[in-house]
Amino acid sequence: MKVDGTWRRAIELAQDGRTVRVLDQRRLPYEIAWVALTTVEDAAIAIRDMTIRGAPLIGATAAYGVALALAVDPDGAERACELLGATRPTAINLRWALGEMTAALAGVARSERATTAFAHAAKICDDDVAICEAIGRHGVGLIRDVASRRSGPVHVLTHCNAGWLATVDWGTALAPIYRAHEEGIAVHVWVDETRPRNQGLLTAWELAQHGIAHTVIADNAGGHLMQRHEVDLCIVGTDRTTRNGDVCNKIGTYLKALAAREDRIPFYVAAPSPSIDWTLTSGADIPIEERSGDEVRFVRGVEVVPASTRVANPAFDVTPAALVTGIITERGVVAPAALAALFGRS
Amino acid sequence: MKVDGTWRRAIELAQDGRTVRVLDQRRLPYEIAWVALTTVEDAAIAIRDMTIRGAPLIGATAAYGVALALAVDPDGAERACELLGATRPTAINLRWALGEMTAALAGVARSERATTAFAHAAKICDDDVAICEAIGRHGVGLIRDVASRRSGPVHVLTHCNAGWLATVDWGTALAPIYRAHEEGIAVHVWVDETRPRNQGLLTAWELAQHGIAHTVIADNAGGHLMQRHEVDLCIVGTDRTTRNGDVCNKIGTYLKALAAREDRIPFYVAAPSPSIDWTLTSGADIPIEERSGDEVRFVRGVEVVPASTRVANPAFDVTPAALVTGIITERGVVAPAALAALFGRS
Repeated sequence: MKVDGTWRRAIELAQDGRTVRVLDQRRLPYEIAWVALTTVEDAAIAIRDMTIRGAPLIGATAAYGVALALAVDPDGAERACELLGATRPTAINLRWALGEMTAALAGVARSERATTAFAHAAKICDDDVAICEAIGRHGVGLIRDVASRRSGPVHVLTHCNAGWLATVDWGTALAPIYRAHEEGIAVHVWVDETRPRNQGLLTAWELAQHGIAHTVIADNAGGHLMQRHEVDLCIVGTDRTTRNGDVCNKIGTYLKALAAREDRIPFYVAAPSPSIDWTLTSGADIPIEERSGDEVRFVRGVEVVPASTRVANPAFDVTPAALVTGIITERGVVAPAALAALFGRS
Repeated sequence: MKVDGTWRRAIELAQDGRTVRVLDQRRLPYEIAWVALTTVEDAAIAIRDMTIRGAPLIGATAAYGVALALAVDPDGAERACELLGATRPTAINLRWALGEMTAALAGVARSERATTAFAHAAKICDDDVAICEAIGRHGVGLIRDVASRRSGPVHVLTHCNAGWLATVDWGTALAPIYRAHEEGIAVHVWVDETRPRNQGLLTAWELAQHGIAHTVIADNAGGHLMQRHEVDLCIVGTDRTTRNGDVCNKIGTYLKALAAREDRIPFYVAAPSPSIDWTLTSGADIPIEERSGDEVRFVRGVEVVPASTRVANPAFDVTPAALVTGIITERGVVAPAALAALFGRS
């Protein structure tokens, strides 16, 4: 998508074919800075400290992390997978990408491993772009339907950032919105601030770059807006979705899903298939990452909660399938109960 | 309650009997600063800019504001009520206190008006303390019941600040917690950060002053904690409660009430009778104050949302009576449907 009018991806390979570049998302929207990842340790740190975030982008970065390890040591795949796998427990894409890389490298000669790994990481990125583009194509119908029923912009509420910055390109939850905008449908996005890390500002920045109307709100405000019928539909992303359609996403998603059901507002989740965990039948089994309390304590380096005060910071919550109207995948939009059948897993 | 070990009230009259002092709540918990209010304009500004906040304290400050006006001009009551009444549209206590003052001044000679007004403002304060103390006495039973059923501390979740800083003393939602602590019941409080103004930090500060265990969480985390059964009950305050038991409180309260119902966690509202609006039969009729977007945009003077980004900032939401387990008043704890009967208004 566009950065200052130029088309970029959230993760790119430099001309040397051996240096990975990512946007430093901790500095957005205040500064556009690209960070070079030249070692697997760089990749692991970028994932853990959230220089990059978003389930699909975590997977893509992990894939390149394996390639960077193999460029140094052709026998380093196992250690690389261990290092990268330990960075973020909740996002399934991370484990999925490492599995993909391991499979692609099986039986490959030592001398070819780095080249194979870079090529496969690039394929994982290209596949992600294709998946997100398809999510946009399927999801735009939901927005078009609202637009066809009445005048004025369609009001979509989203939580966290599930835009192109969370993926390689296009995004998941925002892909249908970008698509609608391209089709000339007027859209206005309610952007949850998304404490404690304020990823809503990434969403606002993305939408501003593309000229899409949006308004940032405190996370507390979404229920009120839904009660007042100022939201037509909700679309969020997911870090992991279980076989039964339970959705694990950024902390606070569950509260918005409850409010949406209460006021009969459709609640959709954009889930690329690599974010679906077919091994789990319930969201209760997903490990919830507890991150540092400093994320709540500091905002842009300024202390907002005194050091003497105890803070808890669970980073994700689980929205039960019963609260999810539909899941938007690269194969189409389905009810949670039909997810497994859509992918031939039932 | 205690400030650095000394018993204080959130609003006090200086020894001169003509200067009102309030704690500057915008500077807490980082600085304990008392502000002198010497004119009705001072009082209006303190209410509007949230130097003080909390429905009961707004009422008490408005009452003293009328007295301050009369000290200058014995005929100034009407203008004072207009000025003060326009500061915060949602809190019913403001209008209630102005009505009380007007009634107390009816027929009073010009020369006696200021003295009468100061005396009546002091009575409003003393009555508030008595009401809050009674709310604590009735509400502690809810905490005691949980404590009697199992071991370990009772986990209470609260939103915003409805402690003694929101009243004259004791608080509303926190009064039962202070009472439980005095009775030796172990209590742990989950304190919602309460964006955009972070009033949860006032709650954390109060609780720390009294040695009560507490943990600050992002507003997004409460639903997750309830899903995981880490909350025994919720107690919140109210800015206005309608005759049918609909509760208007700080934005985000509604989302927590939805989560509490979903996981069968009791959701209580501490409502002193001056915060009940007997003229309204539905929360939908309550004007919701839309405050400046700068409250979302800046945290402790630091910009967190760029100036180019549109922000919306509704300050309150309405929790329907159906989501409220019980209302804790100075007369006892009742189901919302029984509120009017409790006060002889049905």
